[in-house]
Amino acid sequence: MKLTALADVAGLAKTLPQADQAALEAARARQNSLTKPPGSLGRLEDLACFMASWRGVDRPTISRAQAVVFAGNHGICAQGVNPYPQAVTAQMVLNFQHGGAAINQLCRANGADLSVIALELDRPTADFTEGPAMTEAETLAAMQEGAAAVDLTADVLILGEMGIGNSTIAAAMAAALFGGEVAAWVGAGTGSDSDGMKRKIAAIEKGLARHTDLDAMGVLAALGGREQAAICGAVLAARAARIPVILDGFICTAAASALYSADKALLDHCLVGHCSAEPGHRKLLAALDKRAVLEFDMRLGEGSGAALALGILRAALECHNGMATFGEAGVSEA
Amino acid sequence: MKLTALADVAGLAKTLPQADQAALEAARARQNSLTKPPGSLGRLEDLACFMASWRGVDRPTISRAQAVVFAGNHGICAQGVNPYPQAVTAQMVLNFQHGGAAINQLCRANGADLSVIALELDRPTADFTEGPAMTEAETLAAMQEGAAAVDLTADVLILGEMGIGNSTIAAAMAAALFGGEVAAWVGAGTGSDSDGMKRKIAAIEKGLARHTDLDAMGVLAALGGREQAAICGAVLAARAARIPVILDGFICTAAASALYSADKALLDHCLVGHCSAEPGHRKLLAALDKRAVLEFDMRLGEGSGAALALGILRAALECHNGMATFGEAGVSEA
Repeated sequence: MKLTALADVAGLAKTLPQADQAALEAARARQNSLTKPPGSLGRLEDLACFMASWRGVDRPTISRAQAVVFAGNHGICAQGVNPYPQAVTAQMVLNFQHGGAAINQLCRANGADLSVIALELDRPTADFTEGPAMTEAETLAAMQEGAAAVDLTADVLILGEMGIGNSTIAAAMAAALFGGEVAAWVGAGTGSDSDGMKRKIAAIEKGLARHTDLDAMGVLAALGGREQAAICGAVLAARAARIPVILDGFICTAAASALYSADKALLDHCLVGHCSAEPGHRKLLAALDKRAVLEFDMRLGEGSGAALALGILRAALECHNGMATFGEAGVSEA
Repeated sequence: MKLTALADVAGLAKTLPQADQAALEAARARQNSLTKPPGSLGRLEDLACFMASWRGVDRPTISRAQAVVFAGNHGICAQGVNPYPQAVTAQMVLNFQHGGAAINQLCRANGADLSVIALELDRPTADFTEGPAMTEAETLAAMQEGAAAVDLTADVLILGEMGIGNSTIAAAMAAALFGGEVAAWVGAGTGSDSDGMKRKIAAIEKGLARHTDLDAMGVLAALGGREQAAICGAVLAARAARIPVILDGFICTAAASALYSADKALLDHCLVGHCSAEPGHRKLLAALDKRAVLEFDMRLGEGSGAALALGILRAALECHNGMATFGEAGVSEA
């Protein structure tokens, strides 16, 4: 997949793979033959069937799970939107590389290989209150880097992000893509106080006033950032390879929402791992018509909620593939 | 722990171990030093601190997780309360022993050793519409068997049950312990149709009319069953050994509710793994003032929701024990 213009994204859904209906129906039939009352495994059954439909087999497995965390820095930090210094983005990348962050533990616990991609941390995007965060070329380059990070041998892809200031980026993108009061999309992020929240809202309102009449991918360029663009690129590359994606929380989901606004079908292969405690996430999930796998009051990013959901997905497939049918087990049916 | 009378249960809370407040505070302090915004791992932080408080160490680990499924048969099936034949209880025990059930896959996926305890399946309890389900001696014997099943070297205990007809038992116990309309405690169970639900409600109303003025453990004997009593015994034995418990869904929680009604503190060391799709469970969780770890629309029993929650608990401890502190990682604080 080679993108040469952001305007091409909306047309991609027509050329990319769709869910395999035959595999989906075969998986559903298998679920109904297993030694349990039909439907009694609830959403575990749905997850197994979802995996079947995207992997195109009735009994999908996860031999390899890849997690990718994209990191970027943001000019919007000049507006005082974050209590942490911007240097923390690079410090946390080192922490990921040394195995000390939450995402390292969650990947180990759930059997995912972690890739960390730092995107020009010493060259933050532009402050969107003063101009577009990125040019089209910068946006496409970051999308390409995101696409290139996807291991095409993986059976599932977990996406996460790190970037001081990027809860402001997420709220700005969500407000531009879905409308509504800016304040309804803004939360405390890493821990802003009420003055910090006011600065976030003011910066976003200024950005929205400056950048009007944008299409979906135009929002990504004008208000987004490199890790947001990389997430979009990775989502598209995974789709081309029929690899289901687990998006993380508010920031990761807001990034991918640019694709949804370009064409709703572009996120059909994506789960959302958890519903974040960041208040905009619930609103965003409603806009995307997605139900998160977990709801655990988390608000860390890094892919942490998505990695936690991987364990649930693995459990769903263990049941789907490992359980005996009524016939095999000699158990009487209702 | 040797019980000689059901009346002794209410007094046990005074002699059993309590949560270790020093370990709890040390665990909270550690959470606040880790490389993440404070509180951003949400309920994962709470789970780690809960484990610390019961294991009595600031950095608890799970070397051994035990899952126990207790199976029993119920005279109430004579009232036509279940669409499956009663023989399915024994057939499912064989399925557990051969590794074909959901609980087998979920234990393997989440690293729990499974014990299956069949409790006199060829001797169902009495039909509670005609008399007490069990004598005091039978109840105590089943409690003792439950207590004896607990591996005292385990770091966490998962409890589950199997017993055709036992969603009726659970609804009867819940209605007797907490009051309210019988219909509000009754759901489809393994898949009753509306006539089946009416038979469940009628049987329970008849049982409640027959057995009045019962204390909490009297409810267990008169309306419960052997797997319910065994669950109570296992919960008490685990408490004596400071082993935290993960209860499963409606039926397992209703069984343990007899202990709560005897003394609220007796369930302090218990998590509830998931909120079942069986409608009475949400009502029961409210009565117990417990929030389930997961909510996944499951309604299978067997300990399946508790085993799924074990994976989340493991992830919580991996973060708690494996993450670097701000100081260790050289990450700037807010």
